[in-house]
Amino acid sequence: MTADPDLQPPTKDAAAIIKANEQFYEAIENADMDLMRAVWVGAQDRDSATCVHPGQPAVHGLERVLRSWAVVCSRINYLQFFITDVRVRQVGSAAIVTCVENVLSELPGQGEDSLGFGGSHYEAINVFKRDGDGWRLVTHCSAPVFPSERPDSDGRPV
Amino acid sequence: MTADPDLQPPTKDAAAIIKANEQFYEAIENADMDLMRAVWVGAQDRDSATCVHPGQPAVHGLERVLRSWAVVCSRINYLQFFITDVRVRQVGSAAIVTCVENVLSELPGQGEDSLGFGGSHYEAINVFKRDGDGWRLVTHCSAPVFPSERPDSDGRPV
Repeated sequence: MTADPDLQPPTKDAAAIIKANEQFYEAIENADMDLMRAVWVGAQDRDSATCVHPGQPAVHGLERVLRSWAVVCSRINYLQFFITDVRVRQVGSAAIVTCVENVLSELPGQGEDSLGFGGSHYEAINVFKRDGDGWRLVTHCSAPVFPSERPDSDGRPV
Repeated sequence: MTADPDLQPPTKDAAAIIKANEQFYEAIENADMDLMRAVWVGAQDRDSATCVHPGQPAVHGLERVLRSWAVVCSRINYLQFFITDVRVRQVGSAAIVTCVENVLSELPGQGEDSLGFGGSHYEAINVFKRDGDGWRLVTHCSAPVFPSERPDSDGRPV
């Protein structure tokens, strides 16, 4: 995952913010719940944590958020993120990262069957809070991008 | 629109943050583009502005964001927001507001016809930046909530 350097603030914080954002997606891809816990704010900020999964009502509170990720990771056989258009805006001790989640996933079917692989796109808003030299996730929202009726340059719907 | 007092930080900022959030929705409902411009960050932060309309790719940059709202307001005959579950988290000079947008809208049809009124629900993430005594919107995301298959207490799908 790379970020457009023109869009980064000229601060040493930018690299740490982008790193925290990358770790969030690594945690999902690897179903690494220890990393997932380390990515989010700590227990002292537990009430601040909010997560919006695609198409779902918001999940509020650190423990409920972490549990929701455990459910996501247990239900999906395979999940890979191609993160593009990463943009960082720093507002004091907060950082807003927006990016596009291009997701390849394998959906479980009945029994051992798979429903096959599917691709989808989401606009993500990830808000981090400074924690010493690092940054911890306080709000995540993944909003589905609907297929457009507009034709692409080849005249196909995109 | 009221906020659950238990969820508000005990600071004088909370009222100003909630007021800014309310003005955003007033601007949409009234198609008030002057108020919409006043709600968002100023020209010095124009590159920071990001807006995600439901189902759409993100719009980046203040002028493009304001233009997108002009398009939304011109296309929809009637738009009313019932905002619920307002939660405020302050991170230094940034404020993250999450709320549920319960929207009643009238969709235009062919010519003078209307396609009728429709209701829909969205999870909103609104991030504000302190500007003197006030707060200006820097990031808005409205994520559609899909109808659930779960029955409600009367056994109907919700």
